[in-house]
Amino acid sequence: MARKNQSNRLTNQHKASQGVVGIFCEDAQLHDQGVAKISLCVVETLKIEFPQLNFRYRQSISKKEINTVLQNIDKELGQTLFVSDSKIKPDGGIIEVKDDNANWRVILVSEAKHQGKDIENIRQGKLVGKLNNQDLMVAGNAIERAHKNISEIANFMLAENYFPYVLFLEGSNFLTHDVTVVRPDGRKVTLVYNSGTLNRLDRLTSANYGLPINTNLCKNKIVTCNDSVIMLQSTSIYTQPEGDRWKEKEMLEVMLDIARTSLQMLGRDLFRQLTGQKEVINEKKG
Amino acid sequence: MARKNQSNRLTNQHKASQGVVGIFCEDAQLHDQGVAKISLCVVETLKIEFPQLNFRYRQSISKKEINTVLQNIDKELGQTLFVSDSKIKPDGGIIEVKDDNANWRVILVSEAKHQGKDIENIRQGKLVGKLNNQDLMVAGNAIERAHKNISEIANFMLAENYFPYVLFLEGSNFLTHDVTVVRPDGRKVTLVYNSGTLNRLDRLTSANYGLPINTNLCKNKIVTCNDSVIMLQSTSIYTQPEGDRWKEKEMLEVMLDIARTSLQMLGRDLFRQLTGQKEVINEKKG
Repeated sequence: MARKNQSNRLTNQHKASQGVVGIFCEDAQLHDQGVAKISLCVVETLKIEFPQLNFRYRQSISKKEINTVLQNIDKELGQTLFVSDSKIKPDGGIIEVKDDNANWRVILVSEAKHQGKDIENIRQGKLVGKLNNQDLMVAGNAIERAHKNISEIANFMLAENYFPYVLFLEGSNFLTHDVTVVRPDGRKVTLVYNSGTLNRLDRLTSANYGLPINTNLCKNKIVTCNDSVIMLQSTSIYTQPEGDRWKEKEMLEVMLDIARTSLQMLGRDLFRQLTGQKEVINEKKG
Repeated sequence: MARKNQSNRLTNQHKASQGVVGIFCEDAQLHDQGVAKISLCVVETLKIEFPQLNFRYRQSISKKEINTVLQNIDKELGQTLFVSDSKIKPDGGIIEVKDDNANWRVILVSEAKHQGKDIENIRQGKLVGKLNNQDLMVAGNAIERAHKNISEIANFMLAENYFPYVLFLEGSNFLTHDVTVVRPDGRKVTLVYNSGTLNRLDRLTSANYGLPINTNLCKNKIVTCNDSVIMLQSTSIYTQPEGDRWKEKEMLEVMLDIARTSLQMLGRDLFRQLTGQKEVINEKKG
């Protein structure tokens, strides 16, 4: 009976969490500040899926906190702070779970970046460049700034064996396939994905050590190097291969996948809460 | 006799290398592309100081090479390359030494960044902002791009136990002391170093784990964390505390210090070349 009831409960939880996922229709595109909204939805879904656990969402982590974590690893680290209220604000914020020792542990950090408007420009028949006579704009380098928050969160999570950082990319600077776009006058323009003028994915891949993109890399990879064991914190980089916009539902699924991996990696430190509830149910029903 | 001659030789080498350093007068300021010029001077100085060793300078490292290094550590790493000729080009280039196995090993990577023209603007009596009525410009975030090359070189040197990356900062966004500047009309403006409007040092300090700035951090720091040993690759960040321009000679000295530390860290792999020459001298003179 206990098992049956638990099974029903899980089915109901699953249905309820699907309901939250269902809020997003398939083709709703990501809008400004959208990733933060999806993050809040991730929290609601996790609350339903894991009612035994406590989750929280926040928009930023202060450098002071990061310094404290570093100091606890080694007292020489985390000693500098120039602006007292410096903080790290990933677009999608930070989701945490409370562990068995009442410490908040990060389970998801997300950012979404758009770079390259060539597809939109061509569709509208808009020429670009100094003389307004080019189909394509030479890609910029602003995306390189993404490494800063990655580096900060990697330090904050230096003691963990997982790294739940997801970076969503969209726009013509992040293609992995050629795309042909038709102008209003009928002329077709092909965006060659591996052209140095257009593609900026290589500016980001140091953050995942050249591991595959569009892949959940949350569990730290362990490599051996000159007899030392090195644990690699890899960013999970997701891009739209043909320059489409991200759909909110797609992002939600990726984010849930990474958050669930984090919870699994934290299993040892969530064990009492996860199993404690099971015992309570058994007592009630038994 | 052998010892005496060797001692003379070293003194002569030291004098000669001081001669190279002496090319830079005390107050020559860093100009555009200046750090690359100083790098070449570092190479010349090292050739005189260590005539047993072979050095080379290059402007860039290709992503292909970085991928090869990563693949040699683990075959799953270094698998992505979107633009075939992608390369990393730190302003000051890369200096390498040939080790006893004829492999080139990086001993210095340098970048120099200027951000914040407030001191120059105030001295000229130039007001800024949309309405041209402010003394100070709100600082930008472009400096965060510096993390990209740091991340790439850290991957390239993942198997090494030292990280010879030096980042020189100058400009009003990187002060560590308050600075009072006098306008042409006599009015004094104080730049408060720890104001969030002005200071951008906190955007960089994740690259040195909050270790001290203006310090040679070339030797990787080793910390223990949850029973694992972690080796930290820290960028050596140098700033001008009161917004002065970097002097070429000051930079040269910092760069030589870091390059020499690299050579020391590589001692095991340079041993045959370093000691081999000594034996040759002894044979000749003995």
